[in-house]
Amino acid sequence: MLPHDVIGMRRSFHSFPETAFLEYRTAALVAERLAELGYAVRVGPEVMSMDGVRGLPSKESHQQAQEAARAAGASPLWISRMPNGQTAVCGDLKRGDGPVIALRFDMDALPVQEIKDDTHLPSLKGFSSSCEGRMHACGHDGHTAIGLAVAARLASPETIWRGTLRLIFQPAEEGGRGAQPIVNHGLLDDVDIFLAAHLGCQLPSGTIALAADGFLWAEKWNVTFKGVAAHAAMCPEEGRNALLAAAISIPALYALPRDGQADTRINVGLLHAGRTRNVIADEATLEMELRSSTNDGLKRLTSGARRTLEGAALTQGATIDIDVYGTAISAISDTSITERLHHAVLATKGGEVIQTWPIGGGDDATFMMQRVQERGGQAGYCLIGADLTAPHHASAFDFDESALEKAVDILFSFVEKTQ
Amino acid sequence: MLPHDVIGMRRSFHSFPETAFLEYRTAALVAERLAELGYAVRVGPEVMSMDGVRGLPSKESHQQAQEAARAAGASPLWISRMPNGQTAVCGDLKRGDGPVIALRFDMDALPVQEIKDDTHLPSLKGFSSSCEGRMHACGHDGHTAIGLAVAARLASPETIWRGTLRLIFQPAEEGGRGAQPIVNHGLLDDVDIFLAAHLGCQLPSGTIALAADGFLWAEKWNVTFKGVAAHAAMCPEEGRNALLAAAISIPALYALPRDGQADTRINVGLLHAGRTRNVIADEATLEMELRSSTNDGLKRLTSGARRTLEGAALTQGATIDIDVYGTAISAISDTSITERLHHAVLATKGGEVIQTWPIGGGDDATFMMQRVQERGGQAGYCLIGADLTAPHHASAFDFDESALEKAVDILFSFVEKTQ
Amino acid sequence: MLPHDVIGMRRSFHSFPETAFLEYRTAALVAERLAELGYAVRVGPEVMSMDGVRGLPSKESHQQAQEAARAAGASPLWISRMPNGQTAVCGDLKRGDGPVIALRFDMDALPVQEIKDDTHLPSLKGFSSSCEGRMHACGHDGHTAIGLAVAARLASPETIWRGTLRLIFQPAEEGGRGAQPIVNHGLLDDVDIFLAAHLGCQLPSGTIALAADGFLWAEKWNVTFKGVAAHAAMCPEEGRNALLAAAISIPALYALPRDGQADTRINVGLLHAGRTRNVIADEATLEMELRSSTNDGLKRLTSGARRTLEGAALTQGATIDIDVYGTAISAISDTSITERLHHAVLATKGGEVIQTWPIGGGDDATFMMQRVQERGGQAGYCLIGADLTAPHHASAFDFDESALEKAVDILFSFVEKTQ
Amino acid sequence: MLPHDVIGMRRSFHSFPETAFLEYRTAALVAERLAELGYAVRVGPEVMSMDGVRGLPSKESHQQAQEAARAAGASPLWISRMPNGQTAVCGDLKRGDGPVIALRFDMDALPVQEIKDDTHLPSLKGFSSSCEGRMHACGHDGHTAIGLAVAARLASPETIWRGTLRLIFQPAEEGGRGAQPIVNHGLLDDVDIFLAAHLGCQLPSGTIALAADGFLWAEKWNVTFKGVAAHAAMCPEEGRNALLAAAISIPALYALPRDGQADTRINVGLLHAGRTRNVIADEATLEMELRSSTNDGLKRLTSGARRTLEGAALTQGATIDIDVYGTAISAISDTSITERLHHAVLATKGGEVIQTWPIGGGDDATFMMQRVQERGGQAGYCLIGADLTAPHHASAFDFDESALEKAVDILFSFVEKTQ
Repeated sequence: MLPHDVIGMRRSFHSFPETAFLEYRTAALVAERLAELGYAVRVGPEVMSMDGVRGLPSKESHQQAQEAARAAGASPLWISRMPNGQTAVCGDLKRGDGPVIALRFDMDALPVQEIKDDTHLPSLKGFSSSCEGRMHACGHDGHTAIGLAVAARLASPETIWRGTLRLIFQPAEEGGRGAQPIVNHGLLDDVDIFLAAHLGCQLPSGTIALAADGFLWAEKWNVTFKGVAAHAAMCPEEGRNALLAAAISIPALYALPRDGQADTRINVGLLHAGRTRNVIADEATLEMELRSSTNDGLKRLTSGARRTLEGAALTQGATIDIDVYGTAISAISDTSITERLHHAVLATKGGEVIQTWPIGGGDDATFMMQRVQERGGQAGYCLIGADLTAPHHASAFDFDESALEKAVDILFSFVEKTQ
Repeated sequence: MLPHDVIGMRRSFHSFPETAFLEYRTAALVAERLAELGYAVRVGPEVMSMDGVRGLPSKESHQQAQEAARAAGASPLWISRMPNGQTAVCGDLKRGDGPVIALRFDMDALPVQEIKDDTHLPSLKGFSSSCEGRMHACGHDGHTAIGLAVAARLASPETIWRGTLRLIFQPAEEGGRGAQPIVNHGLLDDVDIFLAAHLGCQLPSGTIALAADGFLWAEKWNVTFKGVAAHAAMCPEEGRNALLAAAISIPALYALPRDGQADTRINVGLLHAGRTRNVIADEATLEMELRSSTNDGLKRLTSGARRTLEGAALTQGATIDIDVYGTAISAISDTSITERLHHAVLATKGGEVIQTWPIGGGDDATFMMQRVQERGGQAGYCLIGADLTAPHHASAFDFDESALEKAVDILFSFVEKTQ
Repeated sequence: MLPHDVIGMRRSFHSFPETAFLEYRTAALVAERLAELGYAVRVGPEVMSMDGVRGLPSKESHQQAQEAARAAGASPLWISRMPNGQTAVCGDLKRGDGPVIALRFDMDALPVQEIKDDTHLPSLKGFSSSCEGRMHACGHDGHTAIGLAVAARLASPETIWRGTLRLIFQPAEEGGRGAQPIVNHGLLDDVDIFLAAHLGCQLPSGTIALAADGFLWAEKWNVTFKGVAAHAAMCPEEGRNALLAAAISIPALYALPRDGQADTRINVGLLHAGRTRNVIADEATLEMELRSSTNDGLKRLTSGARRTLEGAALTQGATIDIDVYGTAISAISDTSITERLHHAVLATKGGEVIQTWPIGGGDDATFMMQRVQERGGQAGYCLIGADLTAPHHASAFDFDESALEKAVDILFSFVEKTQ
Repeated sequence: MLPHDVIGMRRSFHSFPETAFLEYRTAALVAERLAELGYAVRVGPEVMSMDGVRGLPSKESHQQAQEAARAAGASPLWISRMPNGQTAVCGDLKRGDGPVIALRFDMDALPVQEIKDDTHLPSLKGFSSSCEGRMHACGHDGHTAIGLAVAARLASPETIWRGTLRLIFQPAEEGGRGAQPIVNHGLLDDVDIFLAAHLGCQLPSGTIALAADGFLWAEKWNVTFKGVAAHAAMCPEEGRNALLAAAISIPALYALPRDGQADTRINVGLLHAGRTRNVIADEATLEMELRSSTNDGLKRLTSGARRTLEGAALTQGATIDIDVYGTAISAISDTSITERLHHAVLATKGGEVIQTWPIGGGDDATFMMQRVQERGGQAGYCLIGADLTAPHHASAFDFDESALEKAVDILFSFVEKTQ
């Protein structure tokens, strides 16, 4: 059912986008293909720990997504091995002695409504999202397809690489929630060489950046203020105004001090409070994120933000609950990896090579890089240029599919050259 | 289809609650019954002006509500005479020379979800709301039923009253929006005597308050801040933060000065802002109300609130739009009305009579009172005691149905005694 | 040195205004005169407790004020008996058996600069303030003069009153700080009948109000925020911004809920924070007051204000210290007193009598009233009408001196009639 | 009276610190010495324009400072040529054809109280500040002394330099206010080569930085909010609360967006508002500064801050006045200057040379650099290492005086090598 060419695979994934921790069809197709290719396949609890999973969808969502995946041709058997949103897949292929080489591919889509428009290739070619309100608007459909295409090339007996190849297909990269549970399970603990790649990121087609930089340390919080409702005209003094507490916190959050030692960012992007005009609001929720160019800067920022939220709640006699919904860390590619990658690129039909390029956001593959590096391995993150039709996460997003084959070549060559 | 006893009518209206400006079934049944009784019936544009209508639901809402009303047995003909939410109904009965006596009844329900519970009479007796998320939680079902019962009694040839009886069935009392368009049409301009009544209001069954006091002058505002979205990490300086502007306005609104000459109240009861964590919010909406014991106090308060909202928007380079969604004014019952009412009560089986009782909220019948009084007529507003199971607007609200017959007696007697 | 006529005495006091707890000349002259008249005089620690003294001036201020008082002719001996600002004076005169009757007079001036202008009687007649930046702008100069004139009249052997007369001359009525230490000492504990009087208060000359109403319960706070300084450009993240904490608290203080059961007031009248532009401010002080028409309302307000200040401090990691600088309570005159006073007024040449008049502020004589009433005595507070040239506390304030003699008559008559 | 050795001169200046635009003694001594050495001396209006002067002290301050300067031995004639704080001095020496070479020295002291302590060299050696509350706590005493020592060395007929030497002694570097009026006068318009130098800046003794970097663009604002006073209890609604307006502005100022394209800083370092507890405050003043690593960033920041202040004022119906008290711009040393300087240093006994070092603050010599560079000349700013006893601006500040001679050597050599 899943085609074998990388563009075909990408289009299949594109047509059936699945959001974080609900990638049942995608993961089942990946597992099935890896098994066919001879990889030792582990899925679900064999590769990820529930410990550290944040923002898991509801039970109903899982049931609906599993049912839809089965209806869309995914193997019920594989799905049954991925309970509770444990949609990670890992394929190992051992070829004699040698290093453990891990490649990471992410599979999740976004809650974005895809445009319908003949200038949009997925519309024109008939592979646009079949799922209302969901879309592959960040290129993970391409990443997954690249992963399977690389898997096939490297499984060929004619290849010369030695060691253990580990292909990791990760759920829930959006929101920065899928990598940590895999790290927590220990899947990176014996990895010697790690590489992740991302398509696009404003890097033009035909260019490869050997490393990505500018990852920000970040925390994403969901904050709830709880107060006490009261009739706003008859007895306002009996209320504890959660809306007012939240409002007081917000300028104070943005006013957290700029940092002399780090670049910082703070944003409260969403606020819902109260129910009706005539009642002192008893609840407010806000969704915010805190970022910094250094871990210490982030610690100072989060510590200040906690104090600010607690203080604002206290002014109204309200209480707060802070749910750390997601985190991101920075990471730096090891020079040995970028050099190896440079050789690998030169061995392909090539393209323009640049040393480093800003990621312009984040990727929780950095948690994997950190684990590999802290255990003595070497890790890298590269960018594969691909012209875009619209920015990442936009509903008109699409990428130049010619980048897919180039990415497969480069990753294949990277493994082949790693002796 | 509509029963003839007041409790039966109340239960029929209760089972099909319709919110402001969508009272198609209720109004059509009212019109039909009044016509059957011999009243000269005017509806829609014949009794209300679109001028001054605020917070009108969408065209789709009207279509759905009309369709549902027809499906629930309302006459398509009457509905067709109430375009665009003009659901007011007026029945006139002329009986020789004499004063124009107007009684006001309100018909609208609330967006409240009724409880389902056998301790709740509507559940137990099977007349609870058939409309998900809507409920008669303020007793207007009872008011409408009282109006029709009084209409029937006074239409009897055995009655002795003289003059012109005008029964006004008003939409959209909630939010204070239905009375003004009727006043604007001129329907009160020839009225000599005006009376409105409300059930409940913490007044126990068997008691009647000849006047209600404590009406607060009020304005209800829907405020929208518009800003400019931007990526919160890459280019926050390009945004115009509507969420932050709204947050700045809120403590400043509550901080508007207490008034040495009037009692005031202010509340922001609802705030929705922003879309997602990582984007500078480009929109915020808030629902608020401003109240004062005097009109001058309200003017000072609204003037301060406008300045505060504009200033807060300016801090962020955002813009605001203030939609005055509803207003309320105070009014004082004329002594001649309370005295006449006292005589009327004494002529019934009676009950305890008190001079005045706090309304504990508002009612836009005050606009009608104001118009009658400013043209030389006399106006009053009385309260009919009724034990409640829960406060007005609560999802467990219900009232002692024995109050219905008592109210009919009193209003009947009031008209009969008015010579 | 001090004249014997009431106008002369008033002018002498007016020319030498002394602010709270520094009334050395005034108090020494009062003590000397009372002793001459045969009163048993107690001063300083004999009539007031240091316990409960708030806002005491510095040691230097005391030394300067004492020296100036001596230079202005006050007796060094009496001054030496008033250490540390204990400038209260009490004269007792016993005349057989009978009730203990206490009258209260306040002596302190204000830190206000008196105008110099020939339309201003003190300028024209040459008795304006000789003390730069201080002024009797509330009429306490008159009160003290009245007290001594009444003392003289009642000391005459021809008078008929019986019992014990206690004349209390109080320091520091401004700020509400002088009465409590006298109460704490126990000076009111055996009082059966208590009366205080105030000139002016918008009540015209020739009128007397038998009682004052509208005293607000109040607390006056001095609040200090302490933070940590830091270079604002190099390392703002190392600061704890006390100025920002104070700024956050202020709209939140004004935004404390209006109270459905009481009238409330809140004001932050003064804020000083920080030292220089380029340093994160490490200190902020604010002076504020909280008022309510009921004691419960004040408790709710102060509890909310404490929470607000603590929460605002917490947002910045700052600390706060709240110094309750002064308090005021309400009090209601006993009917027995107002009736007795009415008889007393009728026995004088009279004037218009009204039952009650708003004080339009506060007076800590209410603490004395409270003590007398809670021990079974009876207490009252009356207003003596006096046309004013400007509002109380204004630099052009002056009152119609004809009110002085009238006040003396009334108080004399009140004691004479109290058998 | 003024010694001729550089250390002696420095100590003389140190003992008589004069703050911005009041450097009458310093400037008169400079002018006198330059004239003695044969320089063509211009002062006051001959070298600076009143246009662009900000934060000028009061007339009384000028009179007092001039009198004190005369009393401290300054020439009344020179002082008379410096009206209204125009204390700039310029000495020109022409030696054949060649470039116009300008050196800048600043003369002003700070409103800082010098410590008295035998570990503090000025105390120990008896040359500490004779002026209460003022201190040379930034090394400008040294700069002025260096300027005069260099003037003497270069005036010697044995020197080989050619062209025109222009020594500029600037007032009011602190606050960034003295350079602009000199630029506005045109004094830099014919300069080919410009150099300024600063002692200290955390650079150790014996080290010279050929360029300073990290100058931030900045504006320093004094902001006044004006409202309307009212009695806080009787009629708070009649006030326009300037204190509250200021408080609302402050978190909003700190909350101005971080900038994706520039580093920014904002601080409100001082806030004074209101007069007394019981009155709605009618005035608030704040002193603040805004900084950015780029001019565009500063423009965005100041535009946001203006909007914020105006909006906050509007919330209360208050008005604001923004006084731009000082500004700073960044500047980059021309490579030709740093290279020439490198040669010059090598020709002295030398020391360690580093290319560039952060200024850690600002210097309005950047305005002179900008003018020279925009007219085609070349400009530089170097740092002369000097161990410090305490940070710049601290009351225990002192610097290693051995740096003085080294600075003289380097500047002398710089001019000599400039052919």
